Amino acid sequence: MFLDFVDDPFYEDEKKCVRFLADGLLVIENGTIKELGLYENIFSKYRNCQVDHYPGYLILPGFIDAHVHYSQMKIIASYGKKLLDWLGSYVFPEENKFKDYEYARAAASLFLDELLRNGTTTAAVFTTVHPQSVDAFFEESNKRDMRMIAGKVMMDRQAPHYLLDTTEQSYEESKRLIRKWHGNGRQLYAVTPRFAITSTRQQLNMAGRLKEEFPGVYIHTHLAENVDEIRLTLDLFPDCADYVKVYEESGLVTDKSIFAHGIHLSDSEMKRLSKAGSAVAFCPTSNLFLGSGLFNLAKAKSRANPVHVGVGTDVGAGTTLSLLRTLDEAYKVLGLQNQKLSAFKGFYLLTLGGARGLSLEGKIGNFDAGKEADVVVLDPRTTSLQQHRNSHHPQPLSNIRDVSEQLFALMCLGDERVVVKTYVAGSVLYSRN
Amino acid sequence: MFLDFVDDPFYEDEKKCVRFLADGLLVIENGTIKELGLYENIFSKYRNCQVDHYPGYLILPGFIDAHVHYSQMKIIASYGKKLLDWLGSYVFPEENKFKDYEYARAAASLFLDELLRNGTTTAAVFTTVHPQSVDAFFEESNKRDMRMIAGKVMMDRQAPHYLLDTTEQSYEESKRLIRKWHGNGRQLYAVTPRFAITSTRQQLNMAGRLKEEFPGVYIHTHLAENVDEIRLTLDLFPDCADYVKVYEESGLVTDKSIFAHGIHLSDSEMKRLSKAGSAVAFCPTSNLFLGSGLFNLAKAKSRANPVHVGVGTDVGAGTTLSLLRTLDEAYKVLGLQNQKLSAFKGFYLLTLGGARGLSLEGKIGNFDAGKEADVVVLDPRTTSLQQHRNSHHPQPLSNIRDVSEQLFALMCLGDERVVVKTYVAGSVLYSRN
Repeated sequence: MFLDFVDDPFYEDEKKCVRFLADGLLVIENGTIKELGLYENIFSKYRNCQVDHYPGYLILPGFIDAHVHYSQMKIIASYGKKLLDWLGSYVFPEENKFKDYEYARAAASLFLDELLRNGTTTAAVFTTVHPQSVDAFFEESNKRDMRMIAGKVMMDRQAPHYLLDTTEQSYEESKRLIRKWHGNGRQLYAVTPRFAITSTRQQLNMAGRLKEEFPGVYIHTHLAENVDEIRLTLDLFPDCADYVKVYEESGLVTDKSIFAHGIHLSDSEMKRLSKAGSAVAFCPTSNLFLGSGLFNLAKAKSRANPVHVGVGTDVGAGTTLSLLRTLDEAYKVLGLQNQKLSAFKGFYLLTLGGARGLSLEGKIGNFDAGKEADVVVLDPRTTSLQQHRNSHHPQPLSNIRDVSEQLFALMCLGDERVVVKTYVAGSVLYSRN
Repeated sequence: MFLDFVDDPFYEDEKKCVRFLADGLLVIENGTIKELGLYENIFSKYRNCQVDHYPGYLILPGFIDAHVHYSQMKIIASYGKKLLDWLGSYVFPEENKFKDYEYARAAASLFLDELLRNGTTTAAVFTTVHPQSVDAFFEESNKRDMRMIAGKVMMDRQAPHYLLDTTEQSYEESKRLIRKWHGNGRQLYAVTPRFAITSTRQQLNMAGRLKEEFPGVYIHTHLAENVDEIRLTLDLFPDCADYVKVYEESGLVTDKSIFAHGIHLSDSEMKRLSKAGSAVAFCPTSNLFLGSGLFNLAKAKSRANPVHVGVGTDVGAGTTLSLLRTLDEAYKVLGLQNQKLSAFKGFYLLTLGGARGLSLEGKIGNFDAGKEADVVVLDPRTTSLQQHRNSHHPQPLSNIRDVSEQLFALMCLGDERVVVKTYVAGSVLYSRN
């Protein structure tokens, strides 16, 4: 059973946005999708191809994690702090270890394998301030041929001295890394100031200059996660009326900018992000874990001022790399605000929506011909609880309402266990044993 | 490694409330705990006993689920409604099936096995309005010798006709069930009006009369879960100033009363629950799933007006039977209110705190000599993520801070997979393969 999206269910009739083939065939050639069709219609054309059969399983485009820190896996589930204290107590000491290339490389390898185990094939990733942490990450990602976005973190103040760089150093190192990695295979570069608190205006301007010199690169940073963070930011940039303005002043609010969180944004700020074509990464697990607040998805996905939204696990503030678990939390965060996240909307955000947010709609996000063949195979009857829950659904699913119900159960009850296979560019990189 | 609690960490120094033995021995005889001590100190006394060894694992008292519906496993993760609509759309049609004893018995068997898989050995359980659903449940529970609290649901209005009973019928059936099951083996009976909306004053009074006639039984119902529910309740009982008053009037607020939720309670209501010695079941997953609101644990556990609190999964509004997953959600619900749930406080609520809430402190909740030997063995390094997260903790754990950190990671990252063995009254009833 294949399921993907051809349009945005936040704005169009859900049923018209979803493409469901109860008995389909996805043809992959050289890592690229050649055709998706009904098995009976197109099979005769491909008689000599090798076929992987997945009866009873759901086959979706690989999931997209719009915001995550590969350096924070080891400090996941650290107790009891809000954002700024949590950074100082747990994050910064661990990130210091990434000055060691071998440490970073081992962490990157483990992290990417965990992503694959969770069905995630693309992510927008924070590294650390050390350029070797970026090289390590891209080496491992490139080895797996995964479509990844990452870049060197910039911090020139408000962090321990051992993690600070300077404007000049950041500029030179980032330039080298952009030349080496941006467009190298499937790797893409993001200019990555951590957030406004840890960068001087000089450094933010330099980040904007890099974006001018290399227009194809991304901007990836944090925005309006926590009220104390916002207060401190506005104290540090007293000439800016709001948080978005701080980034606008340095040319960082672009159509390839990814802003993590965006929980506490004014209407004006949301409107300007919409106009710029920027994306927000909604990280519900993290927002709950750090007690940061509730993201207003309805506001971000308004018809008047639509903002691109992807879903991020934000490990290590998030407590899972599973985007299914993260959707479950998203449903809850939205429910507390009287908003409903249907299964189709949720899975749209993990696939085509995420791809649009990361300006990758032309390459990934659904099964259109010509796209890169990143695919995840899911077993909706993995646990005994799921078997019981889904026992009254006929197999194979035939009507769209049953599909929607089963997907919803999957987003509430699923985790990495349901992932049977993960394909990257047509190759199986993870297989449930 | 043994860990249990000897006092309440909400009121006393945490470190003094927790009992941790890095290398201990728990002696069980005829389903009862005979002694817990350091292995080296007491082993010589028990040379001829059979010993189960669990190096590297954490051994805790069996978990206690303070509120759950065994009839709702199949409608878990049903989409998009708040409490009252959700009941009508999903719950009531499913509960109707429990008029069939065989259906109920199969569901009870599956449910209890799932509890064991999750390390839960005691629960306060809603059945359905059908007396046969109670018989079915207790038959299965008794067969496993599990310490369970359950009772026939009462509803004489505001529900589909096929689920309604009458005051007289409810009285007779409940009386029969109390005589048959209360104190039969480890089974305990709870008089169970669903909630004030679905019972007339006449029926609530009859419930109070049962409690007078059989003082040992419990009262188990719902309270102040959702704002619409509260509004409707006060419309139906216009002479009552608040929700607690509705139950007080019928003599249902007692020291053996278990109230699920209690999210929206006034100071006065909380104070009266405290004075009565009643317990509240905090069900964070359910509260988030139905968008009901955020339970104020600090208020319930205040020094001035302490209320007993247990943790409930509240399946099927809760989306997991894992009390570890539920603690993770509890941490988040509290974080949004600037409250912190330490690991010790969390695990206290699942064990001794839950036992106190259910007036079972004399029988279960910790490893004191004479208590029933319900035990759960946990593997804190089950998943690859947990292995990575915990790799820097020395083994075996030696200081209380490491124990606390590891327990916290377990409550954030754990689920039923970490449960290695579940013992009920000294016998292994679940074993991870």
